[in-house]
Amino acid sequence: MELRAVCLLSGGVDSSTAAAVARDRGYVLYAITFDYGQRHRRELEAARAVARALGAKQHIVMSFDMRALGGSSLTSDMELPLNRSEEERAAEIPSTYVPARNTIFLSFALAYAETVGAEAIFIGANQVDYSGYPDCREEYLKAFEHMANLGTKAGATGRVRFRIEAPLLHLSKAEIIRLGIDLGLDYGLTWSCYAGGPKACGRCDSCLIRLEGFRKAGAADPLEYESIESM
Amino acid sequence: MELRAVCLLSGGVDSSTAAAVARDRGYVLYAITFDYGQRHRRELEAARAVARALGAKQHIVMSFDMRALGGSSLTSDMELPLNRSEEERAAEIPSTYVPARNTIFLSFALAYAETVGAEAIFIGANQVDYSGYPDCREEYLKAFEHMANLGTKAGATGRVRFRIEAPLLHLSKAEIIRLGIDLGLDYGLTWSCYAGGPKACGRCDSCLIRLEGFRKAGAADPLEYESIESM
Repeated sequence: MELRAVCLLSGGVDSSTAAAVARDRGYVLYAITFDYGQRHRRELEAARAVARALGAKQHIVMSFDMRALGGSSLTSDMELPLNRSEEERAAEIPSTYVPARNTIFLSFALAYAETVGAEAIFIGANQVDYSGYPDCREEYLKAFEHMANLGTKAGATGRVRFRIEAPLLHLSKAEIIRLGIDLGLDYGLTWSCYAGGPKACGRCDSCLIRLEGFRKAGAADPLEYESIESM
Repeated sequence: MELRAVCLLSGGVDSSTAAAVARDRGYVLYAITFDYGQRHRRELEAARAVARALGAKQHIVMSFDMRALGGSSLTSDMELPLNRSEEERAAEIPSTYVPARNTIFLSFALAYAETVGAEAIFIGANQVDYSGYPDCREEYLKAFEHMANLGTKAGATGRVRFRIEAPLLHLSKAEIIRLGIDLGLDYGLTWSCYAGGPKACGRCDSCLIRLEGFRKAGAADPLEYESIESM
């Protein structure tokens, strides 16, 4: 029987690598991307390109407006934190935290999985460089999985046991990038910058983490940047 | 300090009654309604009317298109089951089941609660007349609550302990209706019919359950119906 996986695909390094892992494990991919009013809509184009490159069988984009809920600099006009050191980034959950974002994303992924008959849901969450987001921790993901199997027809009737697969959970950014390169993923298709300009800004948390990752992986980032601060 | 509750408000009997309970317990209400491509959009108007009648401080409508995911007669052109007996309705999870619907709804409610500083999320779920939906069971709701406190900034840092409040969980439809009447809720503002005509159809599962509930509660349903089958 065909193995199917729903892949949460933002178009960034982590989700694209997680999807590449799913493909490598033999799954037929059903990619899902969210257009939720984020500043970095360039992500959506990246997600389309990555889904195509990975040969996804289907790619859907769910649209909703998280701005109606407020609460994050990523979806509002609050100022983005720029040029923060690793210590500053680690000190607190940043303003780019979007309330319950992974819970919302995983919930749609679960609905999609139940609909297309997928047992696995791949997410690029990782605890190591996770920017302090509580919804990237293993304990949380296990709790979601448990809830998912109670709250769905397929799970509750025992026809399916849904699994949340987070293959990057314990990898550093550099290890993730090495893994993706080994799997033949073209990181030139991906997008990480929060700022949403024509080139990556090189200064937001997401660019800084990505650039550090490539540096530590000993690889060149194929993306163009506006400016790269000395680190 | 002001007690705040997010209320999932569909505009039907159960969610409206649950919101009335929240108000009765002294909460300031933040109502959230979903426009998800359901057939019965008349619900949305009902939700607005109920939120107003209960003096909700805020009412937001989140829009997204569940039809992109497929899988339910409630959001697609599959035929609605009509005139089914209580036994037929109990026999299986019906085609009106929408994959992971309450999980999606509760996820948005959780994001909203974290944003407005609410600890309680009220949902009209009940196990007794629950139409066979797995995501209306206590075990599921507890699992969601656990996950919610791990996956949010407010929960993970211990600033808040989110609670999923399902005050109707163990009540029959008749008991729910009696409770709402006691709390002064005007059920003429609510809407239950799945079919989405100008009057309630009186034949879909939702109408049948509502009508039975009013009959057993010994109360008159203030709504107008197209036809009421003898039961």
